[in-house]
Amino acid sequence: MINRQLVKKLAQQLKDDGVSALMVAPSADMVFLVGHKPYLCERFQAMVVTDDEKCFYICNMLTEDEAADFMDGEKVYSWFDCDDFTVTVKKAFEENGLLGKKIAVNSAVRAFNLVRMMENVDFTPVNGKDYLELTRIIKTPEELENLRKSSLVVDKVYEDIIKFIRPGLTERDVKNEIARLCKVYGGDDCSGGIVAINANAAMPHYFGDSAVIGEHAVVEMDFGCTVGGMYSDITRTVFVGKATEREKYLYNLVLQANLAGEAAAVNGAYIPDVDAAARKVIEDAGYGRNFNHRLGHGIGYAGHEAPYIHGDYHMHLAPGMAFSCEPGIYIKDEIGIRIEDVVIINEKGETEVLNKCTKELIEII
Amino acid sequence: MINRQLVKKLAQQLKDDGVSALMVAPSADMVFLVGHKPYLCERFQAMVVTDDEKCFYICNMLTEDEAADFMDGEKVYSWFDCDDFTVTVKKAFEENGLLGKKIAVNSAVRAFNLVRMMENVDFTPVNGKDYLELTRIIKTPEELENLRKSSLVVDKVYEDIIKFIRPGLTERDVKNEIARLCKVYGGDDCSGGIVAINANAAMPHYFGDSAVIGEHAVVEMDFGCTVGGMYSDITRTVFVGKATEREKYLYNLVLQANLAGEAAAVNGAYIPDVDAAARKVIEDAGYGRNFNHRLGHGIGYAGHEAPYIHGDYHMHLAPGMAFSCEPGIYIKDEIGIRIEDVVIINEKGETEVLNKCTKELIEII
Repeated sequence: MINRQLVKKLAQQLKDDGVSALMVAPSADMVFLVGHKPYLCERFQAMVVTDDEKCFYICNMLTEDEAADFMDGEKVYSWFDCDDFTVTVKKAFEENGLLGKKIAVNSAVRAFNLVRMMENVDFTPVNGKDYLELTRIIKTPEELENLRKSSLVVDKVYEDIIKFIRPGLTERDVKNEIARLCKVYGGDDCSGGIVAINANAAMPHYFGDSAVIGEHAVVEMDFGCTVGGMYSDITRTVFVGKATEREKYLYNLVLQANLAGEAAAVNGAYIPDVDAAARKVIEDAGYGRNFNHRLGHGIGYAGHEAPYIHGDYHMHLAPGMAFSCEPGIYIKDEIGIRIEDVVIINEKGETEVLNKCTKELIEII
Repeated sequence: MINRQLVKKLAQQLKDDGVSALMVAPSADMVFLVGHKPYLCERFQAMVVTDDEKCFYICNMLTEDEAADFMDGEKVYSWFDCDDFTVTVKKAFEENGLLGKKIAVNSAVRAFNLVRMMENVDFTPVNGKDYLELTRIIKTPEELENLRKSSLVVDKVYEDIIKFIRPGLTERDVKNEIARLCKVYGGDDCSGGIVAINANAAMPHYFGDSAVIGEHAVVEMDFGCTVGGMYSDITRTVFVGKATEREKYLYNLVLQANLAGEAAAVNGAYIPDVDAAARKVIEDAGYGRNFNHRLGHGIGYAGHEAPYIHGDYHMHLAPGMAFSCEPGIYIKDEIGIRIEDVVIINEKGETEVLNKCTKELIEII
């Protein structure tokens, strides 16, 4: 079912920007628009929303019936595998007055498909990643409630997983258990996330899984799931065996940064200031270079969405916003420590840290 | 580790086409090039290979150390989250003489990132999806052996899963069991694939999972895994309860089409003829419109790669090629039946159907 209220809002945004349409390939954006996300393979497909509130779909014949189901009778343009899809795109653009116009692409459209369209169809592509993200930046009370529930699931998983971790397990074993526990506690879409031991954790987006936990190890876990379509996202870093003084010192720095970020994340705060509050703790200790990413990202229908919490995101926090606070220190070939919570500014304008499970340093002995 | 032989081959192809470089975002292409695939989030990242065999990497600071590891000392250009990544891209292109040139993008580059680059950096993007796919279209003996092993895993899974399927299970239950069995038999990267019951199977790329198997049901399963990085891909359709005469008729049509495709898939065959051989069986019976996709796709490091088996793919089969043969009949709101094997033309030029498990009509009673 097409969310017509959202289409209306989106059309107005497009008009304001002088953009004639947005192409939305399968993604969290599409779930938000029509409650469904078809499988996206190498074949181009997108829902198109125009600045005068028209909607249509372009896809391979393979997905035609599926798209017809959620497009509520709106036109579905399709082609067969051995045809050139850009002919269909051209026809769709022509029939809807989009030739020669500015057309935005959302985050899921593939560049090689766009290049083929640009070669054969007359339009100017623009970056449309933000449109639907900004439309959903203020969560509804129901969405906030699902964010709370989703965070509660990962909190429970964390409480169990620290009893499970022991020497001899691989990163993969821990991931599998996280994924299993998420399901047990009612979360969907949990892949096990990132589990990184020792120097592997120095890579913030490490996705390996074969290292084995030794008698002394640092174990960083970053995972999430969905409840009612809303994502959670938590990172905790624990120690197997006794933490060294240096490990304790680094852990405490990251924890202080996390708390400083959360303390700064009040209703109305300027987002670059929130990032800076956490960053200052780590910079003052001389590890600024080792905190090599933004403080956080918005969260909701997508795991990463607006608002992005960094020094160049010029927006103020407002009721209904949801985002992560996740400072880290990464030292190549040695260690990585990150502590992450999801934070919301609730309906009353209060800051709620949704993850309630402990951030105290845990030693598994 | 960068595969220098491959870089050399790729550089020659680029030169032949008058293209100055290829941007390879994390994907099967990248695994093939450097043996590794970093996690791709919304931040742009790509390895760039030029027509004079230079290699460099462009990524967020977050991935810098990880990229440095597999880039063998080649330059990694990076930026920080609150900076504009196109400044870094521009610098990298400038230092490597790529400004104003034709630059290809592989299948994993995102359109919104490309649009931002095009706004701020002078280059002409071209479709580079085929470059690395064509470079690996002829599999090595080792890759063929891994394809065999990978197909053997899914054959074993199929033999077990038909004993597991029974009324009362959901599509999700069957998927979970498929994923579990794949692991048991030594396959990696198995998500459970597609499990579609009755009318759900009329959507070739149905990815729902909540329908429940009744006393009489059609169950279509399409799944694969990897062994040594090589994918398998199998589809079987089984019946719970006694199949009706119509179901038997449709099943047999698809089976005959599958066999006709495999019989036509001989060394040297013109690919459109292979597609046509299978399609004719279904068209002659009056169901041509219901076989709404190509006969198959190549398979290897990616689940879908060159050669694509359809009427507009003008190439001849050759030793070392691997591809699927997967005709189907899809009738909206009623039923979908697909039967898929992976086929190779082996080193001796013989056709080998890698999936050996039965294609006889199975009734689970």
